[in-house]
Amino acid sequence: MFFHNSKLQYEVRVEKPNPLFAKMLQQAIGGVEGEIRVAMQYFFQAMGARGNPKYRDLLIATATEELSHIEFLGHAVALNLEKAPAHMKDEAAKDPVVAAILGGMNPRHLLSSGLSAMPVNANGVPFDMSHVYATGNLGADMLANATAEAGGRVLASRLYELTDDPGMKDMLSFLIARDTMHQQQWLAVIEENGGFEGTLPIPNSTPQSAEATEHSYVFLNTSLDKEAPQGRWTSGPSLDGRGQFSMRPAQPMGQEPSLGKARPDSGAQKEQM
Amino acid sequence: MFFHNSKLQYEVRVEKPNPLFAKMLQQAIGGVEGEIRVAMQYFFQAMGARGNPKYRDLLIATATEELSHIEFLGHAVALNLEKAPAHMKDEAAKDPVVAAILGGMNPRHLLSSGLSAMPVNANGVPFDMSHVYATGNLGADMLANATAEAGGRVLASRLYELTDDPGMKDMLSFLIARDTMHQQQWLAVIEENGGFEGTLPIPNSTPQSAEATEHSYVFLNTSLDKEAPQGRWTSGPSLDGRGQFSMRPAQPMGQEPSLGKARPDSGAQKEQM
Amino acid sequence: MFFHNSKLQYEVRVEKPNPLFAKMLQQAIGGVEGEIRVAMQYFFQAMGARGNPKYRDLLIATATEELSHIEFLGHAVALNLEKAPAHMKDEAAKDPVVAAILGGMNPRHLLSSGLSAMPVNANGVPFDMSHVYATGNLGADMLANATAEAGGRVLASRLYELTDDPGMKDMLSFLIARDTMHQQQWLAVIEENGGFEGTLPIPNSTPQSAEATEHSYVFLNTSLDKEAPQGRWTSGPSLDGRGQFSMRPAQPMGQEPSLGKARPDSGAQKEQM
Amino acid sequence: MFFHNSKLQYEVRVEKPNPLFAKMLQQAIGGVEGEIRVAMQYFFQAMGARGNPKYRDLLIATATEELSHIEFLGHAVALNLEKAPAHMKDEAAKDPVVAAILGGMNPRHLLSSGLSAMPVNANGVPFDMSHVYATGNLGADMLANATAEAGGRVLASRLYELTDDPGMKDMLSFLIARDTMHQQQWLAVIEENGGFEGTLPIPNSTPQSAEATEHSYVFLNTSLDKEAPQGRWTSGPSLDGRGQFSMRPAQPMGQEPSLGKARPDSGAQKEQM
Amino acid sequence: MFFHNSKLQYEVRVEKPNPLFAKMLQQAIGGVEGEIRVAMQYFFQAMGARGNPKYRDLLIATATEELSHIEFLGHAVALNLEKAPAHMKDEAAKDPVVAAILGGMNPRHLLSSGLSAMPVNANGVPFDMSHVYATGNLGADMLANATAEAGGRVLASRLYELTDDPGMKDMLSFLIARDTMHQQQWLAVIEENGGFEGTLPIPNSTPQSAEATEHSYVFLNTSLDKEAPQGRWTSGPSLDGRGQFSMRPAQPMGQEPSLGKARPDSGAQKEQM
Amino acid sequence: MFFHNSKLQYEVRVEKPNPLFAKMLQQAIGGVEGEIRVAMQYFFQAMGARGNPKYRDLLIATATEELSHIEFLGHAVALNLEKAPAHMKDEAAKDPVVAAILGGMNPRHLLSSGLSAMPVNANGVPFDMSHVYATGNLGADMLANATAEAGGRVLASRLYELTDDPGMKDMLSFLIARDTMHQQQWLAVIEENGGFEGTLPIPNSTPQSAEATEHSYVFLNTSLDKEAPQGRWTSGPSLDGRGQFSMRPAQPMGQEPSLGKARPDSGAQKEQM
Repeated sequence: MFFHNSKLQYEVRVEKPNPLFAKMLQQAIGGVEGEIRVAMQYFFQAMGARGNPKYRDLLIATATEELSHIEFLGHAVALNLEKAPAHMKDEAAKDPVVAAILGGMNPRHLLSSGLSAMPVNANGVPFDMSHVYATGNLGADMLANATAEAGGRVLASRLYELTDDPGMKDMLSFLIARDTMHQQQWLAVIEENGGFEGTLPIPNSTPQSAEATEHSYVFLNTSLDKEAPQGRWTSGPSLDGRGQFSMRPAQPMGQEPSLGKARPDSGAQKEQM
Repeated sequence: MFFHNSKLQYEVRVEKPNPLFAKMLQQAIGGVEGEIRVAMQYFFQAMGARGNPKYRDLLIATATEELSHIEFLGHAVALNLEKAPAHMKDEAAKDPVVAAILGGMNPRHLLSSGLSAMPVNANGVPFDMSHVYATGNLGADMLANATAEAGGRVLASRLYELTDDPGMKDMLSFLIARDTMHQQQWLAVIEENGGFEGTLPIPNSTPQSAEATEHSYVFLNTSLDKEAPQGRWTSGPSLDGRGQFSMRPAQPMGQEPSLGKARPDSGAQKEQM
Repeated sequence: MFFHNSKLQYEVRVEKPNPLFAKMLQQAIGGVEGEIRVAMQYFFQAMGARGNPKYRDLLIATATEELSHIEFLGHAVALNLEKAPAHMKDEAAKDPVVAAILGGMNPRHLLSSGLSAMPVNANGVPFDMSHVYATGNLGADMLANATAEAGGRVLASRLYELTDDPGMKDMLSFLIARDTMHQQQWLAVIEENGGFEGTLPIPNSTPQSAEATEHSYVFLNTSLDKEAPQGRWTSGPSLDGRGQFSMRPAQPMGQEPSLGKARPDSGAQKEQM
Repeated sequence: MFFHNSKLQYEVRVEKPNPLFAKMLQQAIGGVEGEIRVAMQYFFQAMGARGNPKYRDLLIATATEELSHIEFLGHAVALNLEKAPAHMKDEAAKDPVVAAILGGMNPRHLLSSGLSAMPVNANGVPFDMSHVYATGNLGADMLANATAEAGGRVLASRLYELTDDPGMKDMLSFLIARDTMHQQQWLAVIEENGGFEGTLPIPNSTPQSAEATEHSYVFLNTSLDKEAPQGRWTSGPSLDGRGQFSMRPAQPMGQEPSLGKARPDSGAQKEQM
Repeated sequence: MFFHNSKLQYEVRVEKPNPLFAKMLQQAIGGVEGEIRVAMQYFFQAMGARGNPKYRDLLIATATEELSHIEFLGHAVALNLEKAPAHMKDEAAKDPVVAAILGGMNPRHLLSSGLSAMPVNANGVPFDMSHVYATGNLGADMLANATAEAGGRVLASRLYELTDDPGMKDMLSFLIARDTMHQQQWLAVIEENGGFEGTLPIPNSTPQSAEATEHSYVFLNTSLDKEAPQGRWTSGPSLDGRGQFSMRPAQPMGQEPSLGKARPDSGAQKEQM
Repeated sequence: MFFHNSKLQYEVRVEKPNPLFAKMLQQAIGGVEGEIRVAMQYFFQAMGARGNPKYRDLLIATATEELSHIEFLGHAVALNLEKAPAHMKDEAAKDPVVAAILGGMNPRHLLSSGLSAMPVNANGVPFDMSHVYATGNLGADMLANATAEAGGRVLASRLYELTDDPGMKDMLSFLIARDTMHQQQWLAVIEENGGFEGTLPIPNSTPQSAEATEHSYVFLNTSLDKEAPQGRWTSGPSLDGRGQFSMRPAQPMGQEPSLGKARPDSGAQKEQM
């Protein structure tokens, strides 16, 4: 069960409100790299957690933290919108800077939300929950979480670079740090379970009989004009210690597909029957 | 530039066509764990690849392979639909097995596609390209790719378990093997670049000054009634070798947010002004 | 800032696990009438709240409660999936009840989530955040919230009717009660601000000069063959006390639209130019 | 059955075509506050109307009017696009006002629609029909309709404030007036059926036995550090006259959730089994 | 401006209500082949029509008719749901036919709409307005409309085949006939403007200088192992009379793409810089 | 099965990188008129092709070519982003041209993709696969393909007009030419199967008994105030040679719909029962 403290997890100061930066910050709220996604992803993974209950605790604790990130980012968006222009009358249209702001800001910050944050990304596209990855497989979920935090830290670093507002830089430096920790903690679960050797291939419970292992450690080169790129994946032991990497040009092993004629009365054209 | 060979990458046999299994197989084509996603994800990553060109080659080679996976899975869906019932007339409605099939199959396999595969998941929801993760950061992208392949192998293992058609089992055992290799190869790129120590935190190019490092290796426990879950993430050196893990109860560090009164003429209620 | 207690807000018992009911319960999590929606709607309204701060507190307090509703419903979904069939082998296919369950349950509960809740509705369509209504106008938001809770209580009542599992009925009776309260509290804000007379029209701050008031209290009948339906809206004082209702057949007041010819080089056909 | 008159419901004049305002007007067509939504919402409610047939007539009459609103707004968008720049050649790029317009307008007004209206919102996101709320419950639907009209009038008021084109102001003042009436008429249905006391809780047909009424009129405070906000919802009779409001700190009443171990062969990691 | 007559365009009779058929009929309302799509597509094309005004009249007249198709199909869905089971209690679960219906019907017909039509397809996926194709080019739009009607008539034919309810068959035979006419009328516009020779290539206003005509009538064979398929498109005069068809194996004409190194501070990994 | 050559199908040169044009080019990648759509549409049609196998070959050959179009367009987007501003610091904000670029470019080209192409349209909306039209009916599919190519060529012509970069103009002139050919080839399939007379109505296999042919060739005029627009569709033989066109004012042929009262316990309001 959730509870709330009226203070923000981190202080939010905006010295130079900037409606364009408000639009950009939305990516950190409602983008696929954003906080709604991680909050909900960890929450749903927690609700489906089976096995050692400490992972459930880990997930729900961090889900809860991410909800607090949404909250202070939402405040940052609203503060950046404080002085947004609300009309496009003649004098405004003639000032190119105002025109650029009016054209460049998210129009729905004016029209729909009344100058506050929305659950959308920097293009104004609403977040959709299909991005909540929760498979019931601990390894797959930990990789998904590290991925989300990697994307999140890339985004926060880019936002940090974009702004020169000291308050925003300070807030983003906190987010960057938390994303560092969250990358660490999800990968630490993999370390704790034996690293790549213990974890891979995911799922590690698939019976050997279900895998055509002659295809499991071979890099297939589908290029018609280049050699296979050489690297850790083309020779030496596999990361799971179960095989040896090799490589081979790809080639068809199957039939030419054919579905024959269409059924009568199946809604096809007569000439297909 | 792409080319095509008329044969499938792998042979597809369906001994007992099953429209319900056709619906389930759609998840491997148009689901977030499916082949359209990985084909497009590796393709877009390749188009944005900067740095060592061999990673571009690796990405495009496997993108090309995944297109071939869509193709043989699409054939498998069509073959599973071969004997699907096309009417729900009285005699059919009275046979509970036929009724269950008619109710349980994807109705659009009858109505929209003419008994063939669609770019949708097992719920009939079309794939949307927001799931193509391509950040321009090699580390983030490799984790995203390993995640996609982990999800893919979880799915293929579940599909393998669901069916007892020998042809389908054979095809899925090939997919399971390829997903093994693809998990390996993306993580091998991380290994090649120094493993977690060299790669983390992602991006590893964020200047130290942009990070509030006092928050970078601390697990924050937001639970009101439980101790922080203990593990690799609560003590010892961090995975990147830059810090030491610790833990601490979470607490607010920011202000209580306030936006004051609404602007006159901003479309709010008078009582907010 | 958010915190978490490890216990659920309400007890969840499932005596007869039912994968079909699990699918139906998803509507209460990820449907437009569901708990993700209200949690996020109240949260975003709170983040944009301007005016009397007690409404912000009211919103965030209930947003927090709704997060707890997601949590216990998610547990209920997982418990209903406990004994779901995981294969469709011959013996299963011959049992019409098993066949009906396999066809009728959400296949992604098997394939994607590993037998646990997902942020999707009863059709498996992911929740999308465009349903988070937060306008910055207190009156509009309170109506939106009452609407959400009305839809929620209709849904919970229908779910109550569908099941005869005593644990599920008990849990739903709690949800029905909370939806009662939440309908009340949002409408109570309107009462507190003068009821319909004080609140309407929303926004009540639109200057009189911006409204063509001769059209403000007239029911326009667009029917060609029936009289206007008579009711509270066709005569008597308006609900806001500012006018008198009347009615009138609708008729065009504007021009026949014409855009003339297409610009040369605008990508139209020559015959349009 | 529908019919059409070739004239618009209201006159549309645009004196100073403005492609940025065209983008903003799209919110009133294809936004969640827009006319497609209300037209379709009232239409689908009418098609599902059960009970007194006059409400069906009311719904379909206004659905029909809203279709006419789409039509004149669509004309307004096209007229605002009349002089949009169609190229970004050197001389244009150097004029900051032209650059701001080219960057700020909806690029698909140039690229996709040939300078006319689209069924999208101000961000270019297509309207999706999940926003058509029609529950089969008269009370829930009337609140949903009042909500839609409240959002619509907030939007129209903001658009009125943004522009100083007299033709656009005139057209919006008509929309503002019609939204006033439509708010009134949907709430008038609630008045006619006994107001809040007769209507609440929605649905008012849920049997008393299905409701844990000890939780029906209690405000739960989930805040850890603040008193419950005081208001009409914390004491006194409930709006439906069935109870007395009270308040109480929220606390868990349920168990700590546990799903135990994962099933073998369920696609989880071995360590979860 | 639109008006409404209280009678349906066509009579709707359902002799044997069938909730599964109700689900299937939804495809004709909210599917991409459905009536919402064509109604809105013709409406938006009409609003953007430039050139000879009779095409605007043609479009709006048929848009209006399609609205009436939504209306009678919506009634058909509701009538098919008349006797849908509303509970899944023990006795029901034991009857495999009832179980198959409960599992097979759209659960939201029970949970969300109160046994009436929704603006969704047969999978319960809401219609989204990105399927409204309106380019401002008369030729492209007429092809899009013929496509929509072709898909619509394929669907209606399949629905006709699925049911043996005489009332439903009668209603569908009307839809099939109207789809015939609508295919005809849109292609007749192309005939009237000179057929393929006058219309193609679309747009026929693109200046010759903008087209690399040496690539305009050549079939490129990308197959590695098969000859180009022979047909009307490989030799003889082109359909627009401007060229001669030929064929040729496809081959790369461009460079190997390279983006070089990533910018410092662009959020990439160090090893990409 | 697919293979890849490391060179692009066509050369890509960008002389004056322009982030606004990069945004516009996205429409040709991830828009409904774009290359992902046609690549996937032809691919899925090929996978479902029944009847003469040469059409399968034709479809897959061109699907493969379209993948190569995505590839060179993706490179063009990245090259146009080469010099995009990466910060909005004070000096930048004061330069109106830089401000216009920062506001006008797709912010996710900075924030999410690291200056490379994304599978989104010019509004940043991700492509969704519901736009892949593949019905299993050869005639419907060929019309859908010609429609897609018509939209594609309209778009490419508009992009050609927008830019004055010689490299971009050259690349677009190639696309315009290929779209010419692809329009031709799909319509050539219709010619080969007897033109409109042989192909229409689609499907041409619907039994005559399933069609209420008295409604098949009649233009219904739903206008209240205008004569039916006269044209090829109002008199003379139908395009399929099966009938004679005529016209008639539309009028209701059905009943006034009524659903009676709501079921008790269906979640409706009492007053509906």
